[in-house]
Amino acid sequence: MATDPAGIKALVFDVFGTVVDWRGSLLRELTSLGRARELDCDWEAFADDWRAGYRPAMNRVLGGEAPWQTIDVVHRRILDGLLAKYAITTLSEAETDHLNRVWHRLDPWPDAVTGLWRLKQRYIIGTLSNGNMALLVDLAKHAALPWDVVFSAELAKSYKPHPSVYRLPVTLLAAEPSEVMLVAAHGSDLAAAASCGLRTAYVPRPLEHGGARESRAESGSFDFRADDFNHLADLLGA
Amino acid sequence: MATDPAGIKALVFDVFGTVVDWRGSLLRELTSLGRARELDCDWEAFADDWRAGYRPAMNRVLGGEAPWQTIDVVHRRILDGLLAKYAITTLSEAETDHLNRVWHRLDPWPDAVTGLWRLKQRYIIGTLSNGNMALLVDLAKHAALPWDVVFSAELAKSYKPHPSVYRLPVTLLAAEPSEVMLVAAHGSDLAAAASCGLRTAYVPRPLEHGGARESRAESGSFDFRADDFNHLADLLGA
Repeated sequence: MATDPAGIKALVFDVFGTVVDWRGSLLRELTSLGRARELDCDWEAFADDWRAGYRPAMNRVLGGEAPWQTIDVVHRRILDGLLAKYAITTLSEAETDHLNRVWHRLDPWPDAVTGLWRLKQRYIIGTLSNGNMALLVDLAKHAALPWDVVFSAELAKSYKPHPSVYRLPVTLLAAEPSEVMLVAAHGSDLAAAASCGLRTAYVPRPLEHGGARESRAESGSFDFRADDFNHLADLLGA
Repeated sequence: MATDPAGIKALVFDVFGTVVDWRGSLLRELTSLGRARELDCDWEAFADDWRAGYRPAMNRVLGGEAPWQTIDVVHRRILDGLLAKYAITTLSEAETDHLNRVWHRLDPWPDAVTGLWRLKQRYIIGTLSNGNMALLVDLAKHAALPWDVVFSAELAKSYKPHPSVYRLPVTLLAAEPSEVMLVAAHGSDLAAAASCGLRTAYVPRPLEHGGARESRAESGSFDFRADDFNHLADLLGA
């Protein structure tokens, strides 16, 4: 890697897919709920549908067709549609609300916590996620993610990839864009960050969409490519 | 104490004076700088003047006479005035900037870190300070303060005691006001929080203004009164 890490002050992380395994976590809760409530459902399809509803909902907001809402509200609207689609009619409001908050209880990838602790010794580490603040704080408690600071697109009342979101850590840390690096498993997120002047670190998460549909590695140009967060710590001398 | 801690979800802390000993920290850096640069100055008066300039500056903003600025900018303007007042003319721009950032390097009261770690096991813990985000994040790194989340008045582009600042943790944690408790050493801060529906915990810091001018205990009505953060953890069952 040609880039010198000197000059980087803060690492901000995409969360869903990059830090936590949303699909594996959803499947564990959904199958457990299904057993407990004797629900028959294709939970893999259910989980994938839930996530698939997210980007179109963001795009409606970014396109001005819908007002900004927290991801909790977005997730709940998608969930209500899926419960109808999959004919799951026996959950109480409290159970449905609890299920919707599964996104506050996602488990980290195996390297995430140890890697973050190493990176934290040398850099400011924070989130930069479309998840709302309450979700991200709960997630950090659940998964023991040692963030120094939590940045959510909620603070810009927008979503990635709107530039206002990438400017948040720059402005709020009183940093230059080049002093902030986004760490993400998704090329589009990294490309949007780069166009705002941030540095970029790509960490592939081939199992984000499950073993049967291994994600292809991104082919874009990034400042760093690391196999996982511990490898990133190696590359950054942390 | 009559209040049941059940139902409290998050503790947010005033920082200057409540978590960190700004005066002792300033004095240590100022006297050390004085020795190194052979400056003759009444550093206690200098430190007290620096802090005393802060509230009038806030009030000008809250009164609409000046635009909102980060505390870093406010501190620097006061510092420039004091360097003139005390006829300190030999500091370079880099040294002056470094000195201004002493507010990013304040040391915690002896009980703060252990108390926060205990409270963090049971509650979301965060800042609620007029310090800007960059300052609060640097301070947390310097003093090893294990915040789950950093809330600054900067996020409301205002300062305490404006209600918009106390509403920040309520809104951003998707909480009820009564689920959030402000912990502070200053009665006026706690009274403003209470008027926004937050709960209040008073922790006196009698040495905030130095041993020669011990702060009188506040006589207001608070949900909790604790001698220090470890005592607060005892009271809250953390």
